[in-house]
Amino acid sequence: MRERYGPWALIAGGSEGLGTAFARGLAAEGINLFLIARRGETLDRAAAELRATYGVEVRTLATDLSASDALAKIGEEVQDIEIGTLIWNAGAAERPALVVEQDVGAADTLLAINVLAPTGFARHFGERMARRGRGAILFVSSLGSIAGSKRLAIYAAAKAYLQIFAEGLWAELSPSGVDVAALMIGRTRTPALERSEYGKETAVPAAEPADVARFALDNLGEGPVLVPPELEQAFSAMRAMPRAKAVKAMTRSLESQTA
Amino acid sequence: MRERYGPWALIAGGSEGLGTAFARGLAAEGINLFLIARRGETLDRAAAELRATYGVEVRTLATDLSASDALAKIGEEVQDIEIGTLIWNAGAAERPALVVEQDVGAADTLLAINVLAPTGFARHFGERMARRGRGAILFVSSLGSIAGSKRLAIYAAAKAYLQIFAEGLWAELSPSGVDVAALMIGRTRTPALERSEYGKETAVPAAEPADVARFALDNLGEGPVLVPPELEQAFSAMRAMPRAKAVKAMTRSLESQTA
Repeated sequence: MRERYGPWALIAGGSEGLGTAFARGLAAEGINLFLIARRGETLDRAAAELRATYGVEVRTLATDLSASDALAKIGEEVQDIEIGTLIWNAGAAERPALVVEQDVGAADTLLAINVLAPTGFARHFGERMARRGRGAILFVSSLGSIAGSKRLAIYAAAKAYLQIFAEGLWAELSPSGVDVAALMIGRTRTPALERSEYGKETAVPAAEPADVARFALDNLGEGPVLVPPELEQAFSAMRAMPRAKAVKAMTRSLESQTA
Repeated sequence: MRERYGPWALIAGGSEGLGTAFARGLAAEGINLFLIARRGETLDRAAAELRATYGVEVRTLATDLSASDALAKIGEEVQDIEIGTLIWNAGAAERPALVVEQDVGAADTLLAINVLAPTGFARHFGERMARRGRGAILFVSSLGSIAGSKRLAIYAAAKAYLQIFAEGLWAELSPSGVDVAALMIGRTRTPALERSEYGKETAVPAAEPADVARFALDNLGEGPVLVPPELEQAFSAMRAMPRAKAVKAMTRSLESQTA
C-alpha cells in the first residue's frame, strides 16, 4: 500500500472525525501524513498522537481551504515530498438554512471548500500522480447528495458535484494507474455531526469513522463511487425514485434527525 | 402565464440558441424580456427581432456572468422592474479537456457560470419571488450530468450541481408558489453545439431549441426535474446503472459525437 499510495498522503480536513480515521488507517500502512485543517491546536494534538502510535512523519498546516490562495500555499509546503494520496474530507460544517435566507459568505465558503478547492487540488496533485503512474484521490461525498433537500440545497448540490467530478476524473486518470473515487457517506459519528442540528440519536445508529475509513481505504481501486454495503440499498432506491418523491424522502429523513 | 410568470423574465444566456427560443416562448405570452449575454451585437439583434415580432419590451445587458460583480450590476439594472421568471441558460461553451490539462482560467469560468452565479442569482431573485408568492426559476442542466465522463469532468459535475440545487430550491420555494426546475437537455441544435467538437451528425437527430423551450415552459410547474419525453428512458437507465458502467457509456456516447 505504501508503494502504491505513499510515501505521503495529504488529508484536507484532517484534524478530527473521519479525517483522523483516514490518517490512522494510512499511518498503519507506514504512509506519512500531511494534515490540513483550520484549527492548529486540534491538528497538533492529532499529529502528536499519530507520530507516537505509528512512528510515521506527520506535518500539519492550519489554513483556511476556502481561501483562493490555499492551493498555492500548500503546493509550496509539499514541494520536497511526494504526495501519493489526496483525501478531500474538508466539508464546511454548514448551518442548515433556506437558500434565500442563507448568509452569502457562508454559501461562498461552502462552494469554495466543496467545489472550487477540490477541483484545483485534484488538478494539481492528479497531474503529478499521473506522471508517476500511481496514486489515489478520494473525495468524501454524501448520500445526502442523491437528492436535493430543504435547508441543505447548496450542500447537497456541492456533494453531487464531487461525485460526478470524481467519476469524470476516474475515467481520465485510472488508465494511468491513479485511483479516483467518491465516497458516499451516511450519518457518521463525528464531532461535526455532534455539533450539527442533525446529532439526534436515531433508530439506525451512525457509522463509526474508523469503519468508514477502513472501507474506503480497502476499496480505493474500486471507483468511481464507493458506497458502504449498509448504504447500497438506499443509494440505489433513491436514485431510482421519481425526483419529487426522492426530494421529499430526503427532506423527511433529514428532518427526523434534527435534535 | 403573464400573471404567474411575468411581467418580466430574465434570461441569462439569452442571445442565441435555446436562450432565444425561451425568449420567443415567453414573449408570445406577453412577457417582457431582460436578456443577458456576453456579446452585445448578438443580443441587440435578438432584441430587435423579439420587439418587432411580439411587441414586448426587451432590455439587454452585455456582461460576463462569471464576473464576481455580475449579480450586483444586474440587480441594479432591474430595480425598476419585476422579474417574475429567471431562466439560467448560460453555459460557457467549454472546450473539452482532461482536468489535469485544462486551463485554470477556463475551469474557473465554467464553475463561476454554472455553480457560483446561478446560486447567487437564485437567492436574489428567489427571495423576491417568494415574497410575492409567484414566479419561476429554471436552470438548464444536461443529460450529460447523470454520469461523469472523460474530458467533460468539470462541466458534467457543474450541471449535476444545478440539478440537485434545483431540487433543494424546489423543496424550499414551491410551497410559496414559486416554481423551480432543472431542465435536462440532450443534444440540441444550437450555435453552441455547432461551434463545439460535438457537432457531428448522429443517427439520432439533435432536438430543436423551440421544441425544448416549449416543453420546459409548458411544464414549469412540474419540477423539480424536467426530462423531455424522448430522454426519459436514457435518464432512468443511466441513473440505474452501476457507476463505472454509466461513466463508460457516457464517455463512449460523447466520443461518438465528436466530429
